[in-house]
Amino acid sequence: MADERLLDDLAGIVGAANVLTDAADLAPHLVDWRGRYRGRARCLVKPGATGEVAAVVRRCVAERVPMLPQGGNTGLVGGGTPDDSGGTVIISLARMRRIREVDPVNFTLTAEAGCLLREVQTAAEEADRLFPLSLAAEGSCQIGGNLSTNAGGVHVLRYGNMRELTLGLEVVLPDGSIWEGLRALRKDNTGYDLKQLFIGAEGTLGVITAAVLKLFPRPRAQAVAWLAVPAPAAAVELLSSMRSEFGDRVTAFEIIAASALELVLVHIPGAVQPLADPRAWQVLVELSDTAGDRALSGALETMLAGAMEAGAVEDAVVAQSGAQAQALWKLRESISEAQRIEGFSIKHDISVPVSRIAGFLESAEPRLREAFGQVRIVAFGHIGDGNLHYNLSRPAGLDNDEFIAQTPLVNRIVHDLVVELGGSISAEHGLGQLKRDEIRRYKSPTELDLMRALKRALDPAGLMNPGKLL
Amino acid sequence: MADERLLDDLAGIVGAANVLTDAADLAPHLVDWRGRYRGRARCLVKPGATGEVAAVVRRCVAERVPMLPQGGNTGLVGGGTPDDSGGTVIISLARMRRIREVDPVNFTLTAEAGCLLREVQTAAEEADRLFPLSLAAEGSCQIGGNLSTNAGGVHVLRYGNMRELTLGLEVVLPDGSIWEGLRALRKDNTGYDLKQLFIGAEGTLGVITAAVLKLFPRPRAQAVAWLAVPAPAAAVELLSSMRSEFGDRVTAFEIIAASALELVLVHIPGAVQPLADPRAWQVLVELSDTAGDRALSGALETMLAGAMEAGAVEDAVVAQSGAQAQALWKLRESISEAQRIEGFSIKHDISVPVSRIAGFLESAEPRLREAFGQVRIVAFGHIGDGNLHYNLSRPAGLDNDEFIAQTPLVNRIVHDLVVELGGSISAEHGLGQLKRDEIRRYKSPTELDLMRALKRALDPAGLMNPGKLL
Repeated sequence: MADERLLDDLAGIVGAANVLTDAADLAPHLVDWRGRYRGRARCLVKPGATGEVAAVVRRCVAERVPMLPQGGNTGLVGGGTPDDSGGTVIISLARMRRIREVDPVNFTLTAEAGCLLREVQTAAEEADRLFPLSLAAEGSCQIGGNLSTNAGGVHVLRYGNMRELTLGLEVVLPDGSIWEGLRALRKDNTGYDLKQLFIGAEGTLGVITAAVLKLFPRPRAQAVAWLAVPAPAAAVELLSSMRSEFGDRVTAFEIIAASALELVLVHIPGAVQPLADPRAWQVLVELSDTAGDRALSGALETMLAGAMEAGAVEDAVVAQSGAQAQALWKLRESISEAQRIEGFSIKHDISVPVSRIAGFLESAEPRLREAFGQVRIVAFGHIGDGNLHYNLSRPAGLDNDEFIAQTPLVNRIVHDLVVELGGSISAEHGLGQLKRDEIRRYKSPTELDLMRALKRALDPAGLMNPGKLL
Repeated sequence: MADERLLDDLAGIVGAANVLTDAADLAPHLVDWRGRYRGRARCLVKPGATGEVAAVVRRCVAERVPMLPQGGNTGLVGGGTPDDSGGTVIISLARMRRIREVDPVNFTLTAEAGCLLREVQTAAEEADRLFPLSLAAEGSCQIGGNLSTNAGGVHVLRYGNMRELTLGLEVVLPDGSIWEGLRALRKDNTGYDLKQLFIGAEGTLGVITAAVLKLFPRPRAQAVAWLAVPAPAAAVELLSSMRSEFGDRVTAFEIIAASALELVLVHIPGAVQPLADPRAWQVLVELSDTAGDRALSGALETMLAGAMEAGAVEDAVVAQSGAQAQALWKLRESISEAQRIEGFSIKHDISVPVSRIAGFLESAEPRLREAFGQVRIVAFGHIGDGNLHYNLSRPAGLDNDEFIAQTPLVNRIVHDLVVELGGSISAEHGLGQLKRDEIRRYKSPTELDLMRALKRALDPAGLMNPGKLL
């Protein structure tokens, strides 16, 4: 009865067509992208404006109903999947999809939370500007989710995470009031920087409804190369030399283990081995500049020729056309898909200081071998940010259930080593449900207490995305 | 008696030589750099290590004694000056002056809070890296103060504020516990990003004792030019074109009104007018690159020649040597000093979206003229960040007291306009005591409540730098 009244009231706020309760309508919103988490919900509401979000939140608070803000539902840690209480109201931002303003002179763009990342990239391009966040899910993930997970991707080396790309936010707070923080300023020191609270908070401190994002000059020239290096340490050294020589032009620097490339060559139609001989460790490097297309490729070729003479690089190919560059990038971007086709894998999204990447790779494999005998490591990632996707695929001799059963011990070995090296067990995916308990092993009581104090200060009733992150 | 016991206990923690109570010793710590604020203090303690800071804080908390963390005491808003209760314990970070680590491969540097900004710049240079924060007080301001005020300066356009330059912090919390957040990671999404709380908090949420800072490739080439533009709007357009053409190479873009340059020419020995004819609005532009010194100056000259033909630039000189570049920078950097020599001035440290700078300048002067008849505006600043130092000097016909008495009304007119344009009344100096009350006029109750909720959550007893910011 109370439930029906709530649904009626929500329909009164957002319109009956925007309150979903049908099992079939709800289904895609109750499971995460990887299919690891499933939950239940009372309903899903789709507010069309900030005021409607606020009214929905106030209504839920009055009834002490838990809420889950949901974006494109492409997250990898179950942060956007409801628990199985069945009491949750999912607040979808999908209808708030307006680009409110593009200001090319201020190099800013104001987008509502439900805008797809790709729509924001396109709106920036149309104003001859760059919005640099770029990641595999960009065609379906939403800006609100990018903000709530502090999304990373392949260009963090040069442009930073979503946090560094954000100047202002509009947020509906857990009590249903609206914080108007949509500032488009590069310098503002008038008290605590409140927007920082909500970025990366995975929806546990409020509902982000809009953001002012930073734009950049659009690069007009790019040079892309695929290289083989003798070892990860050589890749790290090469990165240092390239940054010293090319500075900010180094916009991506990705490492790919042979095992990762092999999966792509096997499973992805049309994928072609880029170098004559397969090598253990390979690097995809991208340089970008606002001018000088041929000069940029030429400078990269000269630099690589020197590195090959010095033995720092074993082999290299520089893309001679945009199509070739795209084909190289496709190899890199198809790794996750190839791994999914190959079957279950134990994944880690870790980071360490760049200077410790080689050390991590050198220590991790022997530790895993010692524990398990055989392992099949598929490593790749954003070495320029110290961020590795260090994944294990099922070894030939093991059946699937045996392999899956190893997950907790594998995680323990990898995560313990990461933390020994001053690293993070979740570089860019967040905690969600997947790592909420795991993190308690690694964070100090002081840090956990501080996090809980923030949660209590902003959401004393604990109604915002309960069971995630904390 | 209680007071003596406290002093004895503090001496027990940091050593008797590091507890100052003598009026002469305390004097420089009780007044701000501009001499606008004076306070009193029980004593000044100089801990030599993080553990000592924590012990001092615990001891003060037990006695409910207010504390003031103090760095180089170069702040401009009285945030580092004690109130006049006489009960405050000043915690000076000056003895914590160690660069703990430089990691050129990770492009990071770990510094204690008491390191001078210049020492950090130098340590980075010695490792062939750049720490880009640069501001007038760099020879005496401390990193802890830079962090606590989220310092800005002339390179924010390219490198961001202190907040964007910080990867990790070590902080003594208001209860005397230590938060170990000294991470050297570019990607870490394991819960709330706690370091953001303390950056820009002006010491009201804890004592920052050390930080991991981002380094960058060191530019090897620079080109500097001084230009005259027809109007501020032309400067803003020129900035857009330059960023489109030169991208990240644009590392500074400063606007200087003729009135500001005139003060420098009058008061600073050796200052020389850089262009043949004085003009109303001038711009100092700096390009930087990791390579190509002559090419960079050449490209700048070509670009400016085109802009002059198009009428976007009226006159220009490109520095032909490092010494010439320094001389141009000196003109810009001497403005504050020249203004100090000229006499009292009413200063504003404001920002608006870059696209609204011209609008601000066009509206502000008529409004002030309408109110006061005569005004003498000395405007300059970091136009690339939308940050203007919009100052008023005493008009010839007015005596000093009359002029000073106008301050509140001048502030009101300027700040109201700034906020109408979506700007900030404190772009880079903070609130401190100077703007603590003024900001209440402009922040929403929701925002002020959120700020107070954070303060209560971290410092429920209100002992950390009371009376500042909030």
